[in-house]
Amino acid sequence: MEHHHSYNTLRVKSIGIDTYRENIVYMRADCHICQSEGFTALTRIVIHHHEKTIVATLNVVHSDLLGVDEAALSMEAMKRLDVVDGDCLTFSHLENINSLSYVRAKMYHDQLTEQQFNEIMKDIVAGKYSNIELAAFISACSDDNLSVPEIIGLTKAMINAGQSISWEKSVVLDKHCVGGLPGNRTTPIVVSIVAAAGLTIPKTSSRAITSPAGTADTMEVIAPVDLDMDEIKKVVEKENGCIVWGGAVKLSPADDILISVEKSLDVDSQGQMIASVLSKKSAAGATHVVIDLPVGKTAKVRTHEIALQLQHDFESVAQAIGLQLQVIITDGQQPVGRGIGPALEAMDVLAVLRNEKTAPTDLKERAITLAGALLELSGEYAPGTGNNMARSILETGSAWAKFQAICQSQGGFREPAFAPYHFEVCSDKEGVVTAIDNRKLARVAKLAGAPQSASAGILFNAPLGKQVSVGDTLFTLYAHTKGELEYALTYLKTDNIITIE
Amino acid sequence: MEHHHSYNTLRVKSIGIDTYRENIVYMRADCHICQSEGFTALTRIVIHHHEKTIVATLNVVHSDLLGVDEAALSMEAMKRLDVVDGDCLTFSHLENINSLSYVRAKMYHDQLTEQQFNEIMKDIVAGKYSNIELAAFISACSDDNLSVPEIIGLTKAMINAGQSISWEKSVVLDKHCVGGLPGNRTTPIVVSIVAAAGLTIPKTSSRAITSPAGTADTMEVIAPVDLDMDEIKKVVEKENGCIVWGGAVKLSPADDILISVEKSLDVDSQGQMIASVLSKKSAAGATHVVIDLPVGKTAKVRTHEIALQLQHDFESVAQAIGLQLQVIITDGQQPVGRGIGPALEAMDVLAVLRNEKTAPTDLKERAITLAGALLELSGEYAPGTGNNMARSILETGSAWAKFQAICQSQGGFREPAFAPYHFEVCSDKEGVVTAIDNRKLARVAKLAGAPQSASAGILFNAPLGKQVSVGDTLFTLYAHTKGELEYALTYLKTDNIITIE
Repeated sequence: MEHHHSYNTLRVKSIGIDTYRENIVYMRADCHICQSEGFTALTRIVIHHHEKTIVATLNVVHSDLLGVDEAALSMEAMKRLDVVDGDCLTFSHLENINSLSYVRAKMYHDQLTEQQFNEIMKDIVAGKYSNIELAAFISACSDDNLSVPEIIGLTKAMINAGQSISWEKSVVLDKHCVGGLPGNRTTPIVVSIVAAAGLTIPKTSSRAITSPAGTADTMEVIAPVDLDMDEIKKVVEKENGCIVWGGAVKLSPADDILISVEKSLDVDSQGQMIASVLSKKSAAGATHVVIDLPVGKTAKVRTHEIALQLQHDFESVAQAIGLQLQVIITDGQQPVGRGIGPALEAMDVLAVLRNEKTAPTDLKERAITLAGALLELSGEYAPGTGNNMARSILETGSAWAKFQAICQSQGGFREPAFAPYHFEVCSDKEGVVTAIDNRKLARVAKLAGAPQSASAGILFNAPLGKQVSVGDTLFTLYAHTKGELEYALTYLKTDNIITIE
Repeated sequence: MEHHHSYNTLRVKSIGIDTYRENIVYMRADCHICQSEGFTALTRIVIHHHEKTIVATLNVVHSDLLGVDEAALSMEAMKRLDVVDGDCLTFSHLENINSLSYVRAKMYHDQLTEQQFNEIMKDIVAGKYSNIELAAFISACSDDNLSVPEIIGLTKAMINAGQSISWEKSVVLDKHCVGGLPGNRTTPIVVSIVAAAGLTIPKTSSRAITSPAGTADTMEVIAPVDLDMDEIKKVVEKENGCIVWGGAVKLSPADDILISVEKSLDVDSQGQMIASVLSKKSAAGATHVVIDLPVGKTAKVRTHEIALQLQHDFESVAQAIGLQLQVIITDGQQPVGRGIGPALEAMDVLAVLRNEKTAPTDLKERAITLAGALLELSGEYAPGTGNNMARSILETGSAWAKFQAICQSQGGFREPAFAPYHFEVCSDKEGVVTAIDNRKLARVAKLAGAPQSASAGILFNAPLGKQVSVGDTLFTLYAHTKGELEYALTYLKTDNIITIE
């Protein structure tokens, strides 16, 4: 039985505030718990409900938003504590969070052990860290502050902090692209080719965090992606592959939390990125993984030197956790295909799979390269034969048939459509396209509403080297509402995205 | 004239949420600005009202807390933007905050210049940094990551980002204690002695952030401390000294913001601490400063080696910014005096000033040491004569007379009182007090309501070396309400604060 101490309880009032992932508790200034804990600092407080416990940051309410015996929680905190309106919360002081001493040690440049990373990840998944504490951890682990043994420890800790899937197969394939390249949506094509070749590739993908589309967002335009573990297993059993959202299966929940803060800091932390990618692959049950590493001035990896270092570290960590891994360094100077945003990217994917004449060849060739590498890495196809085999599977229509079968299995195929509002952005000078800012292009697509509005985004028409005249369309902006279109256009006016010389 | 673009405006609704210092904007999920900016990450957005602009973090509302054309702001954000209920807000995208690139550079161990620190501090004071970004800056500057030239740059940048006072005197004295020692309330005594000696000592103090009392909180029990610049100048002109709250005069606003996040991370960053202390002293117009550095296992400075390093760095930075400075390393093993909490500390201060027989001698002797050092540092008293002079001023009643005059000048003297509820914490064994956890003792005083309830706190009765029997009172807990008393007692039960052997 829970002990309800009359001095330490308040009733939950639901006020519907979404703080993303951070646990916030709202209390009236005149409530005595609030008085005791103090609100001149960013106070952290422990909240209990039945067997569940969270740590939350205190926000103080100076209005009648709450009654004197009420407290409100951010939506994520309500979910974590499993409470609804009217439930009774018990409060207590925050004792030390032991693993924070390791974070401080890391700030002081100590080497952390796998066990210490384990404790940190466990507490992060339990929701015990504030965003400030997460930022301190990320900052302390940024740049080259993590040694390879530490990256291995962090990777294992991330795997341990979540669920893992076992497929009971000796070869389970997977792929990952180190992002930053708008429209680089090879996954549905690669999975279709590899599954059509009879190999197992249970692909879980993420939704966008700061980009205009994640693979899961794009795939969702064509078929349902929100499958639970049992449903995923059925699809893969039947079709060898799937293309689903990984969020529902909680493969690396610590990583999901860290990534949100990491992105908001806009730091490129190679060690954390490797741990993030490989923990997810390993937890998803992959045994053989191909990593696509696009290199370009406005891609995530900016130089060839960084790419080589990254390749080396990826290989070292993969070996330590028992993964077969191949890194493929690719060209990351410009968007891939024409579409940026879920529906527009889905159109590119379908055009390639259907072998349409107008299909973007850059997307097709990238997909063939990656699929070919996976076929060879599996050991089922001899070195040097993967590419031709992948091309043949794609061009004969086997991949398209497999893709349709996967979509049926996931809940049914649907055709993407254009958004109702659009605006053509035209060139105001004549010349040749010499540079494209991928980051700004992604920003515009996002401001137009992608990925929340699946059909919003950009249809890109100005690849590097293209000769353009005054008035030629550089790209078309699509939006679901006039307001979103206008909002994106105000940004466009201030910024130079495409260089024409 | 302000341009109200119909797509980018919402009306303010006041909902009274205090997030401490962070700017938060609350928007409905179905509002198109919210849709465009996206809420899957910790989105930052620019908000305009007339000439003022802030950057805020987006929280999404999924309830009827807000109307569809409304947005709410955290209380600090409303103050910064100078808006009230019904005012019209304009929104725009956040372009890069340029100074964040220096924060990232510091994360990658670059040396920052004074100019770069200037830009960072300017943006922090303008409210452009989220708590996550502040945490990254603090983390990057923690431990020994700041060189002495960088500490100097940071100190100057903090001074530049706020107001400075000029006293038009060649000698203006000040003191500072590097905290962590409950009850160490020497300031009112030191100021009274030094001012009685005819020297200028315009002392601005802080309120508590995570401790049970700041000097301003303690002094406020005895006299008003919330004076503006003109009032402070009048008091000092008349009495040579004052003991006021520094917050109203915004001497180092960047520091005020950084400290809140720093404390919540519980990191000891020496470089930032030195910059914090010396920027405030310099901005307050001090020319000669004595630093009290208590050393003890549970004090802020834990070893003599750290104290010596700190002394060296304090001296280097002081010299670079033109301050005469003396560091005094003192014993920091246990609380000073008997009271912990504003009113209880004020009683100790008054007992010393009034030369009462029961006055705590440790507090008295510490005050004399610091006052003596200031008298000598001023150049007005020969080396070796300061201590005797300070003692004489105190014991003859001159300091008490000066203190009363200062109180009158600040708005009137009042006598502190005990809180209505108390609980005696007794020893359950016989032996000698061998260790005291200052941090936990401070925590209990805080949970009892200090400093929000000025009369709450601890009357301490178990100094190191004291022989105690079973049932002897170790300390008495005071609280303003029964609820606060109970809340503090639940913590007591779980923790060992005083070791008896």
